[in-house]
Amino acid sequence: MKTERRTIRKYSSKAVEPQLLDQLLSEALRTQTMGNLQLYSVVVTKDEEMKKRLAPAHFNQSMVTNAPVVLTFCADYNRTTEWCNLRKGNPGYNNFLSFLNAATDALLYCQTFCDLAEEAGLGLCFLGTTIYNAQQIVDTLQLPKLVMPVATITLGWPDEQPALTDRLPLQAVVHEETYHDYSANDIDRLYSPKEALPENQEFVRINHTETLAQIFSDIRYTKKDCECMSESLIATLKQQGFLK
Amino acid sequence: MKTERRTIRKYSSKAVEPQLLDQLLSEALRTQTMGNLQLYSVVVTKDEEMKKRLAPAHFNQSMVTNAPVVLTFCADYNRTTEWCNLRKGNPGYNNFLSFLNAATDALLYCQTFCDLAEEAGLGLCFLGTTIYNAQQIVDTLQLPKLVMPVATITLGWPDEQPALTDRLPLQAVVHEETYHDYSANDIDRLYSPKEALPENQEFVRINHTETLAQIFSDIRYTKKDCECMSESLIATLKQQGFLK
Repeated sequence: MKTERRTIRKYSSKAVEPQLLDQLLSEALRTQTMGNLQLYSVVVTKDEEMKKRLAPAHFNQSMVTNAPVVLTFCADYNRTTEWCNLRKGNPGYNNFLSFLNAATDALLYCQTFCDLAEEAGLGLCFLGTTIYNAQQIVDTLQLPKLVMPVATITLGWPDEQPALTDRLPLQAVVHEETYHDYSANDIDRLYSPKEALPENQEFVRINHTETLAQIFSDIRYTKKDCECMSESLIATLKQQGFLK
Repeated sequence: MKTERRTIRKYSSKAVEPQLLDQLLSEALRTQTMGNLQLYSVVVTKDEEMKKRLAPAHFNQSMVTNAPVVLTFCADYNRTTEWCNLRKGNPGYNNFLSFLNAATDALLYCQTFCDLAEEAGLGLCFLGTTIYNAQQIVDTLQLPKLVMPVATITLGWPDEQPALTDRLPLQAVVHEETYHDYSANDIDRLYSPKEALPENQEFVRINHTETLAQIFSDIRYTKKDCECMSESLIATLKQQGFLK
């Protein structure tokens, strides 16, 4: 497996062969899944017009229209519910637990696909915007009730080799036996190396903030935006039948 | 990567070397993460007493106490919030969107770890029970606000080689351009091979149901249980500060 991965946003004009895409999507089916129910679907977008229609949901990030393939991974209890209904069962999956079970299945499947695709030399970009404008994606991809988009990746052959981005040290994310909350000293020790990197200091400069953290809390992921998008996300979950 | 994976529930007495565990957890840090914030934590359980305390949350499945290592992956906005607070930021992540962003980060990280661990020859079992009894896990692992457990795996060197479990064909989960809902004929075509497998027919026999689907909808994941656990999951999300 490639452990030196980087996000790829520029793709060559070379197509992703349908056989290769099917092979990778098939191999990823081995991923563990709740009760072996495979509570996910993936919508494959290759059509230029469909990419254009999806783009606004992803804030018109150029990867959506430039990548040869866009994959939208969905939590899907619709198919399983139809199966149960046709087999004299009494499915009851129009609730929040079932959404999170299906979202988990979909995200695990998505990540194994990503790991396999990168191992095959493909490049991809994971779009966190999927849950910001889920309703637009539901409408564009015609997702029925009990289907909810949870992840999107743009996929193609890499046409760039960006520098590796930094990561926090392992001690920042691992806790032995119980969670040990972070003191101010811990935060300094764990985040100072990241804050000192030239690329992050440049990032602060061009964002006109005082600290690196402020770029995230005050510009990119603000309280106001998170609260507003939480409301629309909850509204979409209700409409898709996963919340009362 | 190993694409012939199977879930491993029996482990040899051989320990998982701490260096190997750290190496795999470190390599998995390369997984994509929202804004490079790494919105996850993992609690490592090796202590026998702690395993016993975790076991009831997982319905006392034997893997929890028998595996040398139990890993609980958590959606974590606590660390990032503390960082922002200490750096003059105005973090606003006590909302549902932020929970799902962090849960996504945690699940993607978890799955890359699983893929790497299996490639290294380790065996693991993913416990979907984590979100069924999240409150017990929060209490046992002492998770603060803005930290929520979303996945658990038991890990060790395999002491069994179970048969590969079946999967639906790729056509069951892939949709071209838009979602195409399933007709009764589609369901028959996609599920009949699974239903015809001797192991699944035996599964129906010992569960005293008429159909395979009924085992899931009427015994294992019932409407009543899903609704009850949805309520406790939502209550825990509120307590952890991710829902109003």
